[in-house]
Parts: sequence; C-alpha cells; structure tokens
Amino acid sequence: MRNIKMSIEYDGGRYQGWQRLGDSDKTIQGKIENILSEMTKTNIEIVGSGRTDAGTHAKGQVANFKTTSNLDLVAMRDYLNTYLPRDIIVKELEEVPERFHARYNVVGKKYSYYVWNTAVPSAFERNYSYHYPEQLDVDRMNEACSKLIGTHDFIGFSSLKKTKKSTVRTIDEITIHREGDLLNFTFIGEGFLYKMVRIIMGTLLEIGAGTKSPECIDAIFKSGVRSDAGMTVPSQGLFLDEVYYD
Amino acid sequence: MRNIKMSIEYDGGRYQGWQRLGDSDKTIQGKIENILSEMTKTNIEIVGSGRTDAGTHAKGQVANFKTTSNLDLVAMRDYLNTYLPRDIIVKELEEVPERFHARYNVVGKKYSYYVWNTAVPSAFERNYSYHYPEQLDVDRMNEACSKLIGTHDFIGFSSLKKTKKSTVRTIDEITIHREGDLLNFTFIGEGFLYKMVRIIMGTLLEIGAGTKSPECIDAIFKSGVRSDAGMTVPSQGLFLDEVYYD
Repeated sequence: MRNIKMSIEYDGGRYQGWQRLGDSDKTIQGKIENILSEMTKTNIEIVGSGRTDAGTHAKGQVANFKTTSNLDLVAMRDYLNTYLPRDIIVKELEEVPERFHARYNVVGKKYSYYVWNTAVPSAFERNYSYHYPEQLDVDRMNEACSKLIGTHDFIGFSSLKKTKKSTVRTIDEITIHREGDLLNFTFIGEGFLYKMVRIIMGTLLEIGAGTKSPECIDAIFKSGVRSDAGMTVPSQGLFLDEVYYD
Repeated sequence: MRNIKMSIEYDGGRYQGWQRLGDSDKTIQGKIENILSEMTKTNIEIVGSGRTDAGTHAKGQVANFKTTSNLDLVAMRDYLNTYLPRDIIVKELEEVPERFHARYNVVGKKYSYYVWNTAVPSAFERNYSYHYPEQLDVDRMNEACSKLIGTHDFIGFSSLKKTKKSTVRTIDEITIHREGDLLNFTFIGEGFLYKMVRIIMGTLLEIGAGTKSPECIDAIFKSGVRSDAGMTVPSQGLFLDEVYYD
C-alpha cells in the first residue's frame, strides 16, 4: 500500500468547507475523493490536516491517502488538476512512510487573515479579504497580540460551548504587515479552536479601531465568555497557509 | 454643468467589455450609466478613455460625465459603490474643467499582462493571469521588446483588416518582471490597436519558449500580416493599469 501526501491550494468561495458532508458535492474533500476514486477505480478516502470552514481558502492544506495504484506521482497530479474544478489545485504529491497521518502528525499551522483597510472597496480583493474601512492603530493591536501569544485557555475566543475537551492552546507568533491598503495578519500555533482565528481577528480590529482596549484580552481569558470578545470576521479573508509536521 | 472625472477599477470576468451594447446589462459602461442615471434622476452618458475587451480587467480606467447634480463627490462615490456590483468600484471622483474629455485628451496608457509560468496552475491567479507552463527565456523576450519599442506600423499585431485609419503607433516602454511564478509584462504607449497587446504577448511567449526568434518582430513589421505573429492570448490576463492625461 502506498501512502501519498498531498499539498492542496483552494479558493474556498464556492464550497461548504473542507470536510465531506454525506454525498455533498460542495466540499473540497468530496471533490478530491471523487476524482481520486475515478482515477484509481477504487474507493479512496483522504485524511485532511483539519477542517476549514465554508468560504475559507487554503494555500497549503495537507492531506494523505492510501492506494495500491502504481501511477507515477506527476501523472497523478496532472490527472487531478485536469479533472478537479479550477479553484482546487493539487500543488504536490509525495510518497511518505505508511505511518504518516495528515491529522495526527500535525505539529503546527499557519493562518493568514487579510483586511482591506481603506474607505473604497477593492474589485480584486473582494473575495480574499474583509473590507474594514475604520482607521486601525497597529501599535494597539500589537500590544494585544503580545497578550495573546503563549499558552492560554481560548474558550472565550471560540464558538464552542463548555466542553470536556481541553480548550487550552498555544499561539507561537502573530504578525501584522501592511502592504498598501491590504493588512495581513498571520497566526502560527500548535492548533486552533473552531472559529478561534476569526474571533481573535474581530477582537483585534475593535482594539485597533479604539472601541476595545488591549487589556480586554486579559479580561476575556479571565471570564472565558464569548460575548466579551469581538465579532467573528467573515471567512473569505482567512487562508490556511501552511501545515507543519516533524 | 459640472464635468466629473471618474477613476474606475473592475474585474472584467463577468462582463462583455467596457462599451455599452444597446440595452445590455453586461457591460461596465452600462452598469455605471444605469446607477448614475438613477442617482441623478436624469439620463447620464459617460465617456470612457477607450474600450476594454470582454474579460479584460482595469485598475485605472478613466471616464467622465456631465451633470447638473450638486451632490458632494464623496457621497456620489459612496452611492455608486453601494449600488454597483462588487466587481466594479469607483475609486475616485474629481471635478474637472468643462473641456476635459476622457477619450480625446488621452496622451498615453499603461497595460499589464500576467502569465502564470509554472507547471501547476494557481487557484487564486486563475482568473487574473494566463497559465503558460513552458519555460520562458526572458533575455530573448527582452531582445524582442527592444525591437517593438518605438514608432511602427503595428497592423500585423492587430486583428484589424487593412483600413484607411493609421495603424502606426508608438510604444514607449515594455518591462518584464518575475515575482515567483507570476510574470508581469507592462506596456506603456500613446495608444494601442484592437487586440494589439494580446497579440504582442502571444508573440513574446512564443519567442520566450523558443518557437519563434526575436527577429520575427522585424519580419512582422515588414509583412504586416497577422498570421506571422503569435496567438491572441486570453483576455483574463490583461489589465488597463493607468490612463495618462496632460
């Protein structure tokens, strides 16, 4: 049995997210499994590094699948890219040891969030950023970021209800970078809770705009209450950039 | 009568081009005229700097229109951007002297063409570049560009039939710039014939890939025959970047 690791890029705009939902044809996983199954004339299931939400994009999603097919990897990649919709691209295939598991073996992830930060919207960034016209104080947001970095209980920054599973996570790095009217926020960490990046982003924007203070981060950690944090920003600004393995 | 100059950005992917075609709702000019007419409760016609083809984008198309409305320019811009589709954006409005004419007063234009130049396609550049996987020799293309620059009869690089109007044009500058897998070609000149940039691009790509020589440019100027030049590359890689006035 060969174990094949895939690196995948997708424009999530038209999809209900990564994870296959029954027979739905509107998920990234479903689209890829269908083509792989046709290609190999067997029923292929792929394991993704984790879900991405409806509308979220990926530049470096990772998945793996097992197959007895002995097709050459470049031929396989080209077959996939020929039959997949143009908004899902298999960038690379690699044969890996049988024990490799795209979800269990993740040691970290990098996400980007893009904000179009000027009065007039953009025709080209409209589907790949969130238009937020308010003036943003980057120093205030960086102050809040320094409080977010580290190991904390992020329950207040997630849409999870109280749960038995741990909601403690570690964020290693947050950066904010402006290029013209486009602000790029990056988040690197071991793992993130459901909607955590988008709720942190909504909170950072309110801090940058002056309606919340950087100190509210400490208060949200303390209370663990979702409504103390900011809004959930739209998924079209979010990109899964990279998944890290040992 | 106020004369108002507009700077417009659009993703041309869904449109039949700039120029209004009868009652068609699928042109950029038509969309803008409809909203301006609703806004002013009068029948507004706008004059563009020139047409762009179906599928071609613009970052800096310019147009002007006359109106008796005394609405504030920022309110006007925000009204337009609220009611226009999200892929057409009015970046700026400016009041100009009554004699300003967006087409007659053009002194130059800048176009960009983007080529996605690697084996694997891109999910994000798919609608904003032409995927050309062949390896390209930039030195050979630059050699051809130095022959294209200057004043020449570009009839062989256009899809015009022999015409009484002059097909002599001047190209002032062509640049080729690589950023990762994306190649950006820019063209600055007084004016360009119908499909001229896209046919020059098709010819440059064949020169870069080695199937034509840089010297073929001289031969096309000499013969004036369209079929001596390269293919017309797809419109989705073309952007009208800027229109120059005195």
